[in-house]
Amino acid sequence: MAKTINDLKNYPQPTIILVEPQMGENIGASARAMWNFGLDRLRIVRPRDGWPNQKAVVMASGAGRLLDEASIFDKTSEAISDLTYVFSTTARIRGLSKEVSSPEKAMKKARNLIEKGERVGVLFGPERAGLSNKDATLSQEIISIPVNPKFPSLNLAQSVLLNAYEWRNGGEDPKKNKNVQKLAKSGDVNILINAYEADLENKGFFWPEEKSDSMRLHFKSLFSNLMLSDSDVRIFHGIRKALSRDKRARD
Amino acid sequence: MAKTINDLKNYPQPTIILVEPQMGENIGASARAMWNFGLDRLRIVRPRDGWPNQKAVVMASGAGRLLDEASIFDKTSEAISDLTYVFSTTARIRGLSKEVSSPEKAMKKARNLIEKGERVGVLFGPERAGLSNKDATLSQEIISIPVNPKFPSLNLAQSVLLNAYEWRNGGEDPKKNKNVQKLAKSGDVNILINAYEADLENKGFFWPEEKSDSMRLHFKSLFSNLMLSDSDVRIFHGIRKALSRDKRARD
Repeated sequence: MAKTINDLKNYPQPTIILVEPQMGENIGASARAMWNFGLDRLRIVRPRDGWPNQKAVVMASGAGRLLDEASIFDKTSEAISDLTYVFSTTARIRGLSKEVSSPEKAMKKARNLIEKGERVGVLFGPERAGLSNKDATLSQEIISIPVNPKFPSLNLAQSVLLNAYEWRNGGEDPKKNKNVQKLAKSGDVNILINAYEADLENKGFFWPEEKSDSMRLHFKSLFSNLMLSDSDVRIFHGIRKALSRDKRARD
Repeated sequence: MAKTINDLKNYPQPTIILVEPQMGENIGASARAMWNFGLDRLRIVRPRDGWPNQKAVVMASGAGRLLDEASIFDKTSEAISDLTYVFSTTARIRGLSKEVSSPEKAMKKARNLIEKGERVGVLFGPERAGLSNKDATLSQEIISIPVNPKFPSLNLAQSVLLNAYEWRNGGEDPKKNKNVQKLAKSGDVNILINAYEADLENKGFFWPEEKSDSMRLHFKSLFSNLMLSDSDVRIFHGIRKALSRDKRARD
């Protein structure tokens, strides 16, 4: 198998290394999962069905570039030889004395390391057997996904997806949320409350007399609690005016 | 389609609601993804190929119980009627003025709400089209997965997986705290919205004609966003009735 090494100069992301993947479909789905979260450096060790793999290409649709650019290796040790910090993903932690982290913690650490100029990789084992002890030993840290112990069977691409997701999750600058509207000023809410109160008063809403104080209090408290935006306030004014009409004004 | 509601007594987890899923395989894979992270309450609205679905059963292998126990509904509003806080997952945020959160933030919030005794659901739309604006309007908050904008195509089960993972990531199963004021059920809020809508319609509120659809959407979204309690709902019914009277009824 050809050995080519991805560009060594620039490592702004962890490299994903699939060890002995069995099904081409899983390689393709892993490439998709990577690219869904902006990762595009893929290495593959001893793919069972050789390389290139047409089933991988079909499944990767849209992320085929990652397969074209993937590097293929005979040995795991060769595939990680230029990396400086390697994580192993495995469901089973078999007495290896290595730190064990969640994807979240691991990908935050990966980010720190990469910011310091380290070259980081994440190893994934074959579909059924998982990563061998020998390969896991080559790594510095274990990633364990917190699955339901009664049903722990994640597939390869799902494991890649969760790690890629956590990588992306850790790094983006928080965006301002433009969809949330600013709250209305207290004074504007108060005008709204008073308008409603006057109308309701006029319609005999605060009744019977002995309960009217407490009803008024609840009514005002309700509106104050609603966290209305300016546009909400306008809509509520419109509702009030429309409902107070004696009949269809536009008929 | 049969309508049965999952056990109402105990909600230590968010309910997953798939709206109009197309492929049985995707329903099965979603059930697996849920159970991988310990979620097992599934509701399905108008599955394209009817129910039960053999392809879903085959794909779910190991998580078939979730399909057996799934509730099937004709309408999204019915599927969430007993829930008090609903998230919509959608890639496109189309001018709905609702809070937008990452899966991580949303599932942390879900945990807080459930600890307060609220009943939480997460809506997922059909595979290609995604959730309709109309269905998203029924929810209180949007979940947006921070995908690579150049390659945002997550499949249904992957979206479910990432949310289920974040739920589990957030910690132990929540304990209920009963001494907090509860939110109104979505079904009760819906009845309120419909009552207001009918009255406003009658009064010529949704006018001019060419703006009436957008006015209606904003009006409904406003009420869904208010996080009303049962007592708030009662007060709003009272306000509506009082304002709609032609004159002081008790004079």
